[in-house]
Amino acid sequence: MKRYQFHLSYNGTNFCGWQKQPNANTVQTEIENAIFKIYSETEIPVVGCGRTDTGVHAKHYVLHVDLPHVEDLQKLKFKLNRILPKSISIQEIIETSSEFHARFDATQRTYRYFISSEKDPFQIDTVVHFPSSLNLQVMNEAAQLLVGKQDFTSFSKLHTDVNNNICEVFAANWVENGKGSIYFEISANRFLRNMVRAIVGTLLDVGTGKLKKEDLISILNQKDRGAASLSVPAHGLFLWEIKY
Amino acid sequence: MKRYQFHLSYNGTNFCGWQKQPNANTVQTEIENAIFKIYSETEIPVVGCGRTDTGVHAKHYVLHVDLPHVEDLQKLKFKLNRILPKSISIQEIIETSSEFHARFDATQRTYRYFISSEKDPFQIDTVVHFPSSLNLQVMNEAAQLLVGKQDFTSFSKLHTDVNNNICEVFAANWVENGKGSIYFEISANRFLRNMVRAIVGTLLDVGTGKLKKEDLISILNQKDRGAASLSVPAHGLFLWEIKY
Repeated sequence: MKRYQFHLSYNGTNFCGWQKQPNANTVQTEIENAIFKIYSETEIPVVGCGRTDTGVHAKHYVLHVDLPHVEDLQKLKFKLNRILPKSISIQEIIETSSEFHARFDATQRTYRYFISSEKDPFQIDTVVHFPSSLNLQVMNEAAQLLVGKQDFTSFSKLHTDVNNNICEVFAANWVENGKGSIYFEISANRFLRNMVRAIVGTLLDVGTGKLKKEDLISILNQKDRGAASLSVPAHGLFLWEIKY
Repeated sequence: MKRYQFHLSYNGTNFCGWQKQPNANTVQTEIENAIFKIYSETEIPVVGCGRTDTGVHAKHYVLHVDLPHVEDLQKLKFKLNRILPKSISIQEIIETSSEFHARFDATQRTYRYFISSEKDPFQIDTVVHFPSSLNLQVMNEAAQLLVGKQDFTSFSKLHTDVNNNICEVFAANWVENGKGSIYFEISANRFLRNMVRAIVGTLLDVGTGKLKKEDLISILNQKDRGAASLSVPAHGLFLWEIKY
């Protein structure tokens, strides 16, 4: 057996997230089913770089899988892409070290969240329409307060199974994307469940004036999910890049 | 009453085209219903710049409509966009001459057809996946044979109600769009029903080597829809621009 990295992207609209679950359509299920068809109906598990929630997309997702030696990686990619639905596309398959772990070896994850003040009929599933006017400068100042090693309990879904809620945020910025469209990009060593969507909801409240940028500090200090604003919808969120 | 131009775009995926029909969801029906709600339930017809088929999109569509004097055009646009589904977006409303006719005054219409050799999960409804390799140069040479004033009967859906099938094609080009993605752009004074999709199907046959570029001349001369290749799917096609 050899270990391979798959680099892929998926549109999360019709999936209950990445992770395999009984009676639910997930990205992991689709990929394992496609491998099952190609490898003479042998069940081969894949290990993803992380979970994504229902409706969240991935521009760049990495998994690892152990397979019998593959002669032609291009051909395997082509065959899998033919079996997989249109909403999942494998961009590249590469051989990797037998030690490589898609989840534990990731050193940096980057998410982007897209919103637009204009209706865009061609991005219904990937951009959130937000017609209120926003103070981008103050949103960016508030975002800087998130950078560093901090406890993100206030931005985490309750009752998750992680031991601690410390994350190191490397960068957090709002970027103008042309024609009333902006995105929020955040990079960290790890993310808690629902964290980006709770952060974006809170920063939008700063942008409309409901909150002051200094409120971010008190929200972080309270270590209570009730302190932050509501989460924004899933469909504007992309797992954008994974670094190892 | 004053006459107004609406400039809009729509995602045609879930519409039976532009034109109002009984018991079918069309773009015209949605717009007339939205106007009906705003104007105290008065039925006000709109006149579009042309028909689009089921599943075809419009990046730029123009209609005219006669309304009681509108004080605030921005506000009317905002109200209509709130009522209209996500798949229809009005970009601009402007007052125009009472003589202006969205259909008869158009001097140039441009369509684009998008295909890609790579699967793109974020453009499922707007780009056609076509994995075969294509000779873009010969496709472009063939496309030049379409330019000029010619009879396009061979690229027209049979039994349409038009008097003649002469169209003047101003330009027809294949354009590289990055990452395995290309589009075909064609401008003409008018288009026959299904014409662009039949042309694209025929040019793709040239690109894969099934047809020679010179075959375009004989196909045009035969004036028979059976002479050209099959039509390509609707979802790659956009009405891209209208000029007056």
